[in-house]
Amino acid sequence: MKKYYLLSPGPTPVPPEVLLTQAQPMIHHRTKQFSAILDNALEGMKKIFKTKNPVLLFTSSGTGAMEAAVVNTLSAGDKAIVIRAGKFGERWGEICAAYGVDFIPVDVEWGTAVDPKVIERLLSENPDVKAVFSTLSETSTCVAHPIKELGEIVSKTDAILVVDAISGLGAQNIETDAWKIDVVVSGSQKGLMLPPGLAFATVSKKAEAAIEKSTLPKYYFSFKAALKNLAKNTTPYTPAVSLVIGLEKAVEMINSEGIDVMLAKYERLAKAVRAAAKALGLKLLAEKDAVNGATAILMPEDIDATKVKNILLDKHGFEVAGGQAQLKGRIIRIAHMGYMDEYEMISVIAALEMTLKELGYKFTMGSGVQAVLNELSK
Amino acid sequence: MKKYYLLSPGPTPVPPEVLLTQAQPMIHHRTKQFSAILDNALEGMKKIFKTKNPVLLFTSSGTGAMEAAVVNTLSAGDKAIVIRAGKFGERWGEICAAYGVDFIPVDVEWGTAVDPKVIERLLSENPDVKAVFSTLSETSTCVAHPIKELGEIVSKTDAILVVDAISGLGAQNIETDAWKIDVVVSGSQKGLMLPPGLAFATVSKKAEAAIEKSTLPKYYFSFKAALKNLAKNTTPYTPAVSLVIGLEKAVEMINSEGIDVMLAKYERLAKAVRAAAKALGLKLLAEKDAVNGATAILMPEDIDATKVKNILLDKHGFEVAGGQAQLKGRIIRIAHMGYMDEYEMISVIAALEMTLKELGYKFTMGSGVQAVLNELSK
Repeated sequence: MKKYYLLSPGPTPVPPEVLLTQAQPMIHHRTKQFSAILDNALEGMKKIFKTKNPVLLFTSSGTGAMEAAVVNTLSAGDKAIVIRAGKFGERWGEICAAYGVDFIPVDVEWGTAVDPKVIERLLSENPDVKAVFSTLSETSTCVAHPIKELGEIVSKTDAILVVDAISGLGAQNIETDAWKIDVVVSGSQKGLMLPPGLAFATVSKKAEAAIEKSTLPKYYFSFKAALKNLAKNTTPYTPAVSLVIGLEKAVEMINSEGIDVMLAKYERLAKAVRAAAKALGLKLLAEKDAVNGATAILMPEDIDATKVKNILLDKHGFEVAGGQAQLKGRIIRIAHMGYMDEYEMISVIAALEMTLKELGYKFTMGSGVQAVLNELSK
Repeated sequence: MKKYYLLSPGPTPVPPEVLLTQAQPMIHHRTKQFSAILDNALEGMKKIFKTKNPVLLFTSSGTGAMEAAVVNTLSAGDKAIVIRAGKFGERWGEICAAYGVDFIPVDVEWGTAVDPKVIERLLSENPDVKAVFSTLSETSTCVAHPIKELGEIVSKTDAILVVDAISGLGAQNIETDAWKIDVVVSGSQKGLMLPPGLAFATVSKKAEAAIEKSTLPKYYFSFKAALKNLAKNTTPYTPAVSLVIGLEKAVEMINSEGIDVMLAKYERLAKAVRAAAKALGLKLLAEKDAVNGATAILMPEDIDATKVKNILLDKHGFEVAGGQAQLKGRIIRIAHMGYMDEYEMISVIAALEMTLKELGYKFTMGSGVQAVLNELSK
């Protein structure tokens, strides 16, 4: 009977209205009915991506769309720049390596954002760079890279800018067209309030030109096949029909609030959680450039963050994320994106206070919750 | 208010018990709870595949698992044999071509099965062939290839046998281990009674050795990454959580009946539909080697099969498939796999009779339904 609070940065909770669409009887995907749903969902996605570019849909994890972005725009031996400031930035490098793309790694300290000047210098020193790969919201550290500035810089070169917005889209502002981003990839299970299983990619005109030159092998993740089918409101292969039906509903819900209203809400939730952490005497992993979709809180030196995470789940029912790689045991990550509200932020901070007390940490009980309330009532 | 009868060879209807699992609140995938579900589902899948080999899970259409089978077992320039007897056999060739695999096409007339002796001769003439790609149930023609015989032949060579059982698994008998098949791929939306979005691959010891030698590029569809994660009851990337929860339920339902009981049921349904077609004076596309999961019925020369398909859907609510490529306008395909029963076969034949009458075809009204009843009451 214990209630389960899913407050991890993906998968995020799915609204009941969307869940109910998943229980509807199956329909065929090569029908006018399904084509209308797909079209409606992907047209609605353009408002969330803030783009007029086509939005491609793939049945896969977000990682599938990352791979698609690499194999559809590059050729073996091409040079790229990969911004690595956490686990997901590293993934761009792993995919490039798997396909023989020669990349310049830009390693940034975990918990900080890339300096756009570094990219500007690298691009001028390496005019043969074909693509710059970045992350919007690096979930492993909860840091946002300056995508707008990167767009200004990269758009002046022949390179394309490819951004992983898997955990960012819907929670962290991204303006695909205004910021001149050529390919933005995303996934369904974060800000979009859907179960995992769908991935997306936007494709600019500049990216379409890169697609024409790309010789890396691809089949399932072919942008060309997806673009050709999109024009007929269909997909090359059987899509995850029920998830697409859920997508139409979730996108409708987001757009009826308005994406900017949603973004402002997550910013408020993020500020409240950050204020609570400080009130409890805890440090944030990222004081600067923190994302709005999740917050990484450093646990006190003498307290194992994995223990905190486990007590939060086992005793209190709160699913938060721990740290990955070198951050394992040092941080917990609380999400504020998707179908989440103010009262869940109050609750998770309350549960964190009880957990920290149990582990012997000294602080004024209730000061975290008080900070959340103060921030939210501003 | 019109009722919708989904009788296409994929997606197939999903049982209400499985649909309801899809409406459950989201849970996190890196939890003991989800690992237990995944393990239970994939262990249960072994009974359906009739194998002791590991069953890998991918979030993708079935085509993704086909691509995975190619890129994980071969290297560029490797030689393969591709059996092409329809649209899905051709897909193996397209994937090989996309990845620079040099393949010998074995083109078989649409509506017929491959002669195993042809493969035996080709393998002895080409001892450097690394893999033979076949289809269990070629959905575009509703024909089954002699996989058991192919297994006997291929297992005596250094080549591996790779079988697309996407539309076959659960409806058409396949004995992965007894028939010595190295890789069997499948999808969720056919015999498994699930929405589309999950794909599977079994991997034999011989296939594992091929994986070690394979140098084709891969990332998302890596068998090595999937095998490594499977050992920890997890997946390399966020899986389609809700579909996996549905899979556990569907697999439990199939295994509680017993896979052989299910297969016998579909055989009965197939026989009944074939008998009905004959009673109506219609020809089957495949008189020999017909699959049990679906039946392709040739429409009379002067009747456009697309018109039949459309009237069946628009007027009567029955979703059947038409023909693909050169069979467009010539056949309709009625499925009998997944969550389907005797009474839906009676109903679809009844609707077909009314449609044919409307189109001016001469026959004794009710003779099709009578044939179904006669066959089912045997």
